[in-house]
Amino acid sequence: MQIGIVGLGKMGYNLALNLKNNGYEVIAQDVNVESVDKIGEEGGILGAYSLESLCDKLKGRKVIWLMVPSGEIVDEVIEELTEYLKPNDIIIDGGNSNFKDSVRRYHALKAKQIAFLDCGTSGGTSGALNGACTMIGGDKATFDYVEKVFKAISLENGYLYTGEAGSGHFVKMVHNGIEYGMMQAIAEGFELFEKSDYDLDFEAVAKMFNHGSVVRGWLMELTENAFRKDAKLDAIKGIMHSSGEGKWTLETALDMGVATPVIALSLMMRYRSQQTDTFSGKVVAALRNEFGGHAVEKA
Amino acid sequence: MQIGIVGLGKMGYNLALNLKNNGYEVIAQDVNVESVDKIGEEGGILGAYSLESLCDKLKGRKVIWLMVPSGEIVDEVIEELTEYLKPNDIIIDGGNSNFKDSVRRYHALKAKQIAFLDCGTSGGTSGALNGACTMIGGDKATFDYVEKVFKAISLENGYLYTGEAGSGHFVKMVHNGIEYGMMQAIAEGFELFEKSDYDLDFEAVAKMFNHGSVVRGWLMELTENAFRKDAKLDAIKGIMHSSGEGKWTLETALDMGVATPVIALSLMMRYRSQQTDTFSGKVVAALRNEFGGHAVEKA
Repeated sequence: MQIGIVGLGKMGYNLALNLKNNGYEVIAQDVNVESVDKIGEEGGILGAYSLESLCDKLKGRKVIWLMVPSGEIVDEVIEELTEYLKPNDIIIDGGNSNFKDSVRRYHALKAKQIAFLDCGTSGGTSGALNGACTMIGGDKATFDYVEKVFKAISLENGYLYTGEAGSGHFVKMVHNGIEYGMMQAIAEGFELFEKSDYDLDFEAVAKMFNHGSVVRGWLMELTENAFRKDAKLDAIKGIMHSSGEGKWTLETALDMGVATPVIALSLMMRYRSQQTDTFSGKVVAALRNEFGGHAVEKA
Repeated sequence: MQIGIVGLGKMGYNLALNLKNNGYEVIAQDVNVESVDKIGEEGGILGAYSLESLCDKLKGRKVIWLMVPSGEIVDEVIEELTEYLKPNDIIIDGGNSNFKDSVRRYHALKAKQIAFLDCGTSGGTSGALNGACTMIGGDKATFDYVEKVFKAISLENGYLYTGEAGSGHFVKMVHNGIEYGMMQAIAEGFELFEKSDYDLDFEAVAKMFNHGSVVRGWLMELTENAFRKDAKLDAIKGIMHSSGEGKWTLETALDMGVATPVIALSLMMRYRSQQTDTFSGKVVAALRNEFGGHAVEKA
């Protein structure tokens, strides 16, 4: 079976290799010529330098997996692809798209008789290469046609048809919200370790936690890895960026009227970490000075 | 080697069996006569009906492992035990004691030449039986003498000498604080699933998450188990009790001046869950009515 891959970033590149290793005939395209050259040199994967060329190389009912940055790029790629696709061809969006966009794209493509699946992909770049975790929304009949692809590139039991259009990206979005909260909880715990009077070996603590404790899991294993590389994380700053899924989770919670204080605070702490000083801090300091004459720190 | 166990609740009982299965000569005591009878019937474990009797049966340098509820009971047991112990005998507190109490007990016992180790024990009752996760504070020489015991009852790499007195219970306390935050994050995510328009199979989602996702881990496995037993958790109420370690973690964070918003909110959400209505809710509703005439719901 042939699969077209659009987007050869870390995730798409590894996914292409994963598919090839599982016996699929992969045709891979990226706007970056060097990425196409590079994957061509891997052996067994055919590079394509345009979406038109990609579609030319795919025979019969086409299956095209998008692994491009979320947002307008997805719309642009889909718009161009539809010029070359025929009814019943399948587009899978394996990126981190907003589930509301995926619902919209599903309907827009359905009007053109093109099938669309939204696929949330977890497990990081190593998962993309060696066995991902995928959650797939869209028409069941479309899913059934390509289920073997998801089965092939995912860990055993690591893929799930989650239901109608958008559900794959919805579940992935909430997964990331959970991830924000879990990471912040781990982080706060280790800050308590770091600030305590005990002289703790953080890597050793994380390693011990990973062998039988309640908080064992992949994030704690990554914590152990991070402290193995840099015992006190002296080499990096505590600035936490985010790529949008936590914000979407919170926006969705607000729309749904669901209280998610831990996910909300995890996101706010990321924003706070990006500021070296805050205006809100100035306001509180000024007010304490106004009512009680408490000292302020001069700029 | 002989080990005395004081306290045959779920944890102590399983630990006694774990020690016996690892070739230790276990003498086990509990204030509950039936528990002592029952463990005597397991074969290979000698029951004792009083602390004095327990100590009588232990020869040479005594090692006594306490697995009793935290608080005054620990002090009472230790006070009585000291009547029967000799210099260099060792008391291990394997329960969930407050680390500050453990520091105090360490010094009080040191004055009587009795050695004391504080041992945080994680992994639940199955861990206590099949391989726990233990973190141990106290004098290194004392730890060295009984290291083989911790090694025997813990999973491989699942025990750690964390440093001076109190550090074992401190690390365990923070572990539980992390656990509160991780559980709340998972819980908020599944509430979003539950409130969404998608018809999700929560067990299937958790199972898929456990096969390759970033949020995989023991807590997600327990989530999967819980939904396997009760697909929508219809049989239980969302009332979250707590046994003190989250509160201690937050108190410690406050004493240390460390911002731990996620751990704090996780604890507050437990308290909130124990109220069917709140006075604070009444206050806000009344204020909205006062300034804007917004409707209130009558009691």
